[in-house]
Amino acid sequence: MSRCLITKAEVQSFVERCMVAVGTKPHHARSLAEVLVEGDHRGHYSHGLNRMDMYVKDIESGICAKDGEPVVEKDSAATALVDGKNLLGPVVGNFCMDLAIKKAKEAGIGWVVARGSNHYGIAGHYAMLALKENMIVRVLIFYYSSPEMCNDGGSAVSHHMCHNLPPPQGMSFTNTSPLVVPTRGKQCTLGTNPISVAAPGKDGDSFVLDMATSAVALGKVELHDRRGDSIPEGWGCDTHGKLSTDPKKVLNGGGLVPIGGSEATGGYKGYGLGMMVEVFCGILAGAQYSNNIRTWKVTDRVANLGQCFVAINPDNFAHGFNERMSDLMSIQRGMEPADPDFPVLAAGDPERTNMKKCDEMGGIPYHINVVNYMNDCAKRIGVSPLLPCDKVVSE
Amino acid sequence: MSRCLITKAEVQSFVERCMVAVGTKPHHARSLAEVLVEGDHRGHYSHGLNRMDMYVKDIESGICAKDGEPVVEKDSAATALVDGKNLLGPVVGNFCMDLAIKKAKEAGIGWVVARGSNHYGIAGHYAMLALKENMIVRVLIFYYSSPEMCNDGGSAVSHHMCHNLPPPQGMSFTNTSPLVVPTRGKQCTLGTNPISVAAPGKDGDSFVLDMATSAVALGKVELHDRRGDSIPEGWGCDTHGKLSTDPKKVLNGGGLVPIGGSEATGGYKGYGLGMMVEVFCGILAGAQYSNNIRTWKVTDRVANLGQCFVAINPDNFAHGFNERMSDLMSIQRGMEPADPDFPVLAAGDPERTNMKKCDEMGGIPYHINVVNYMNDCAKRIGVSPLLPCDKVVSE
Repeated sequence: MSRCLITKAEVQSFVERCMVAVGTKPHHARSLAEVLVEGDHRGHYSHGLNRMDMYVKDIESGICAKDGEPVVEKDSAATALVDGKNLLGPVVGNFCMDLAIKKAKEAGIGWVVARGSNHYGIAGHYAMLALKENMIVRVLIFYYSSPEMCNDGGSAVSHHMCHNLPPPQGMSFTNTSPLVVPTRGKQCTLGTNPISVAAPGKDGDSFVLDMATSAVALGKVELHDRRGDSIPEGWGCDTHGKLSTDPKKVLNGGGLVPIGGSEATGGYKGYGLGMMVEVFCGILAGAQYSNNIRTWKVTDRVANLGQCFVAINPDNFAHGFNERMSDLMSIQRGMEPADPDFPVLAAGDPERTNMKKCDEMGGIPYHINVVNYMNDCAKRIGVSPLLPCDKVVSE
Repeated sequence: MSRCLITKAEVQSFVERCMVAVGTKPHHARSLAEVLVEGDHRGHYSHGLNRMDMYVKDIESGICAKDGEPVVEKDSAATALVDGKNLLGPVVGNFCMDLAIKKAKEAGIGWVVARGSNHYGIAGHYAMLALKENMIVRVLIFYYSSPEMCNDGGSAVSHHMCHNLPPPQGMSFTNTSPLVVPTRGKQCTLGTNPISVAAPGKDGDSFVLDMATSAVALGKVELHDRRGDSIPEGWGCDTHGKLSTDPKKVLNGGGLVPIGGSEATGGYKGYGLGMMVEVFCGILAGAQYSNNIRTWKVTDRVANLGQCFVAINPDNFAHGFNERMSDLMSIQRGMEPADPDFPVLAAGDPERTNMKKCDEMGGIPYHINVVNYMNDCAKRIGVSPLLPCDKVVSE
């Protein structure tokens, strides 16, 4: 199968020009484009360019708002409730996470929830915004009052380290359209409700958990269906709520099951985690929740998603966070694996491998069908097409 | 199998007198007894009276401290780092959760982590302390500055509701002795690292998630082993890291696997969640972590566990939390179940059923072997035995 290589900059620019063409403000379009490019760069194609037409349609139809900015409705030193004003998910998400980080710098933690939001791309993007504070912290070093991080001798290295004060940890959660059947049930009443947690290690290393609380993403079931393959037991159930290895049954009237699969193998825990995400999102924020959320790809009514963004400043806790974090990951990665060909990983490692591969190739490889589909979309709205590099990648 | 019924008050008193006999301060003994009784009352016998001898031995040997109180090491409006001073886990846990609740009342959220702690019983106990604030809030109503909760007409019911202001949500996490093998690995480097989240609904109803991040508890594997039964695939692995249905292989050199089971069915998500708990506990608190934690039942060195306690005040977010929370649970419970004999539950429902059963019987039913074992322990330390009711329960 051949794939077209497209530079990150071109994907970024393409998404921006498409979104602006249908009336999105340039800085909102930029926010969306960044999240989608990041999704693809990390290898999560289901949350990247592939979904751009959904955002284009939402703006064109007016289901998603073009104008305005998110508004803080309730505010305290460590918490905020934000009205996302039905703007694009990444606009709401960036606003809330920036606010959470600001609060974490001042109060140790920031816990910000939003209602009136929309699909926001990969949850990890927001959690990782906290990691990126490394750079901001260099400029805004006066935000940190404690000098205790600079206590190892004043060498060039430690001086540099001192300017790399531990950035906050980040967390992000969103509710989503119902696709998951609770344990013992047979209707989809929960979304894939992702959990993302990012925590910084040493030397730019990090732990980045970004996972749906369903056993798998719907896209994986669809892929097996297209290939005519069966799915592993524990991914989904049929219309009677019975686990099924037939992807067609899962896709037609059945649903995904929570992590853990059946009740006997702990599926009720995944169900509980999906509910936990709903508590942090729809319930805390006063947004839509559970099966009140519009179903996937229905775009005739406002989504009003609830989302939750948390930043934690390790400086308010025990000294040496980054060193311990790196050691924790080293313990796992350094372990002898069950199969020598498959090393033990830490959350975020598969994505790092994918990003490295893209960077070495000089772009992100897209299936030709995706490029053609996007260019049809671009033509319709009068935008110049995606320009692949002159390289074709074989896989 | 016959069981002895023992009143909650007698179990509480028995644990207190045993702990005090070996030198525990009376109010510390009371804290421990409360958590153990609650564990049994909720049906989690693996975290109740059954474990008392471990605490007795820890105090007798001096591995766990008798004297002192937990100390706040770092403090901000919304966060704190606590040194548990190697006191009993429930002493540290109650101290931290009380502090988190106090902070949540003032700053919207309290995020408190402890190092120097010990086994603290069921994680749910601490998360639920936030729920119990219902009662405290009635007395300390001046803590709430916002009158917006009392806006529905002044009837007797709404007046009562107004005094039942939404209590904080609670969360609790602890790291534990290594028993879980990371995905692709073959050594136990993580504990069963539980997550607990409690959130209040209407009329005393609540969502109480209290789950290990392993597929099952070790006790369940032991139980199958004693019965000579095989275990479901996805509970544990053998010494080569391969999933096994033979409980002996899991118990002898193998280990539990994270929720989700194999890599194909999403076990890496459970592994990521176990790591997340470690980030919140050992890493943030500067306590022991991962396979540096002493192994289970090794009591010749200090545990120095890390724990994390969070309280969130729904009053700082969207109005109507309790109503939405109850509706969210009703959607799930009201769904037609796959099997009419097994209704869809919300987290906390199985425990509520167990508590109701105990309350109707007038006590907690214990296996005669447990009672005998505890009474041998009591005799050794010169304490009067557990007194069963005059009822014997058949099961």
